[in-house]
Amino acid sequence: MSKDISVAVIVGSLRKESFSRKVAHALAALAPKNLRLEIVEIGDLSMYNQDLDGEPPAAWTAFRDKIRAAGAVLFVTPEYNRSVPAVLKNAIDIGSRPYGQSAWDGKPGAVVSVSVGNIGGFGANHHLRQSLMFLNVPTLQQPEAYIGGAGALFDEKGALTNDATRGLLEKFVTAFAAWAETHQKG
Amino acid sequence: MSKDISVAVIVGSLRKESFSRKVAHALAALAPKNLRLEIVEIGDLSMYNQDLDGEPPAAWTAFRDKIRAAGAVLFVTPEYNRSVPAVLKNAIDIGSRPYGQSAWDGKPGAVVSVSVGNIGGFGANHHLRQSLMFLNVPTLQQPEAYIGGAGALFDEKGALTNDATRGLLEKFVTAFAAWAETHQKG
Amino acid sequence: MSKDISVAVIVGSLRKESFSRKVAHALAALAPKNLRLEIVEIGDLSMYNQDLDGEPPAAWTAFRDKIRAAGAVLFVTPEYNRSVPAVLKNAIDIGSRPYGQSAWDGKPGAVVSVSVGNIGGFGANHHLRQSLMFLNVPTLQQPEAYIGGAGALFDEKGALTNDATRGLLEKFVTAFAAWAETHQKG
Amino acid sequence: MSKDISVAVIVGSLRKESFSRKVAHALAALAPKNLRLEIVEIGDLSMYNQDLDGEPPAAWTAFRDKIRAAGAVLFVTPEYNRSVPAVLKNAIDIGSRPYGQSAWDGKPGAVVSVSVGNIGGFGANHHLRQSLMFLNVPTLQQPEAYIGGAGALFDEKGALTNDATRGLLEKFVTAFAAWAETHQKG
Repeated sequence: MSKDISVAVIVGSLRKESFSRKVAHALAALAPKNLRLEIVEIGDLSMYNQDLDGEPPAAWTAFRDKIRAAGAVLFVTPEYNRSVPAVLKNAIDIGSRPYGQSAWDGKPGAVVSVSVGNIGGFGANHHLRQSLMFLNVPTLQQPEAYIGGAGALFDEKGALTNDATRGLLEKFVTAFAAWAETHQKG
Repeated sequence: MSKDISVAVIVGSLRKESFSRKVAHALAALAPKNLRLEIVEIGDLSMYNQDLDGEPPAAWTAFRDKIRAAGAVLFVTPEYNRSVPAVLKNAIDIGSRPYGQSAWDGKPGAVVSVSVGNIGGFGANHHLRQSLMFLNVPTLQQPEAYIGGAGALFDEKGALTNDATRGLLEKFVTAFAAWAETHQKG
Repeated sequence: MSKDISVAVIVGSLRKESFSRKVAHALAALAPKNLRLEIVEIGDLSMYNQDLDGEPPAAWTAFRDKIRAAGAVLFVTPEYNRSVPAVLKNAIDIGSRPYGQSAWDGKPGAVVSVSVGNIGGFGANHHLRQSLMFLNVPTLQQPEAYIGGAGALFDEKGALTNDATRGLLEKFVTAFAAWAETHQKG
Repeated sequence: MSKDISVAVIVGSLRKESFSRKVAHALAALAPKNLRLEIVEIGDLSMYNQDLDGEPPAAWTAFRDKIRAAGAVLFVTPEYNRSVPAVLKNAIDIGSRPYGQSAWDGKPGAVVSVSVGNIGGFGANHHLRQSLMFLNVPTLQQPEAYIGGAGALFDEKGALTNDATRGLLEKFVTAFAAWAETHQKG
């Protein structure tokens, strides 16, 4: 039987009606039983500044503790200007410091990018992967998840109504469960 | 005779003793006479959230106005986790919105990346360039400026003491002046 | 009146029925009068090997001469494995050597990526741009051209039948003409 | 006891005195006993052309068979024009086709980039990683291996003489051995 794994989900948008947040909720509902997805909020993290490493804001410490407690990490993000939104990059940076104490190290991870256009956030997806390589987050490779045309995938209550996307997300989160198990430490 | 061009300089680190800030000061001193470099501070910009586009924080509006008033833009940045620091990406994102009203559009630009290691921030440099392509900021191509080993380039007062780096920065900012002139609108 | 500019067009696929080649033909037909697009073939270039720089194959020399004679360069390419096809990268590499004698230097350029999928070759497009930055090819930024769904854009004779794509390509090649004029040397 | 794993080593340069080839030899000597590194030559692979998929050249088939027979893959490559050399990309492309029959699928992999400059081939390293993600090659993340200053690392016979580089390569290939074991199929 599979071990339970808690997954810290990071949503790369602060917008109330964020499509990425809706995709995150859909993934939580589609995940295999042993994978418990929970969104870790990042909107209250002040901007990273190395000068504060000695006396970090309480929100930084709380965030790092939540990542450390998780068995895996999942990023669901829009693309801003062909790259990762600042709010998500800030969470990445805060979790990675102080030097030598990264909370991300060794956690298996996965990336979903979401956009209203056709390209599905490819630029954000791969820029994020470059950071995750550096942070030693083994990141699911296949299937890739570029969710385009996000404006037409949900109903008024935010529920996913597109069958093709549901199929892709289910395949994705199932592969992620296997990947996360393979890379559990200890 | 060359026209005067005001250059908005964005420094991608909030650290008081930031090497990137020192490089920015060195560039200001080395620039041709007609190029006036001035740092535009970004540390007080709250995290971008599209929900605030209707009533933007005063700091966002002030920042956008400064970029609009500039004739060119120059980015001097460290690399965090093989990509652009969040604080710099946030400035990029804020300047780019609301949709269709980007302050960056058409401004000639250039990128300098700075690190204590050998690689000189290559990852941050090129991720930033991908955003600048999207924002229609014609970006200086050659010479590239990857400033490595930054820990050994300055004296205790923050003045640049390395001759090879001074030579590179002078060549860089001179080429940027010509590039900025070529791409002035109107 | 605008000066005539000859554009060397490089197609990144050897396939006889290549969609990229069809897009190249469409662009040639849509280009402003002063822009003369001509495909420079790259299929007969043997693989680059620095050991041959002293006595280069005749095909390498002929290719370099054609690039040198052009006033601008345009790349139309599929994506292979999320990057640039080898056949196109080989043309880039051959044109760039021997060291210090790059045929690409200073030529204004543009990139169109083409794929049957939705993403439109974003990965190839931006990997190619990174090389062009290094080669000092000032590359058109906007509009970007990611041509997706290429399997449904042409008739049996290879003529472009999709109006939206025609509109995009026309806007693109018109912007390229202005860009190429701005960056003509001398 | 560890299972023996055969590693197909791909060298991204055809130059006789290639530094990448020398690094590959050094890695073979430093590898743990159960990892057998063998260079698979790629210089005789003609340029990929999808039209030949029905009747592939014998060299393509032989190459694909060697990759399929390997338990892991290791890429050691220079950087050409801030990206992957064409000769290496061609090997990637040939191994990946015909559609649905990729020889790379699921093989654990690793990347070493090599250059005479300081940056150590960062651009080639990460462009290659983007292709490997697509090809479902789980790729070693840490330690990264950017081998700079390659002109000063070897003696006249091509033997590695730099202790710091030897230490890095040993750490790298040891981590790769563990990574390759984790990702063996079946």
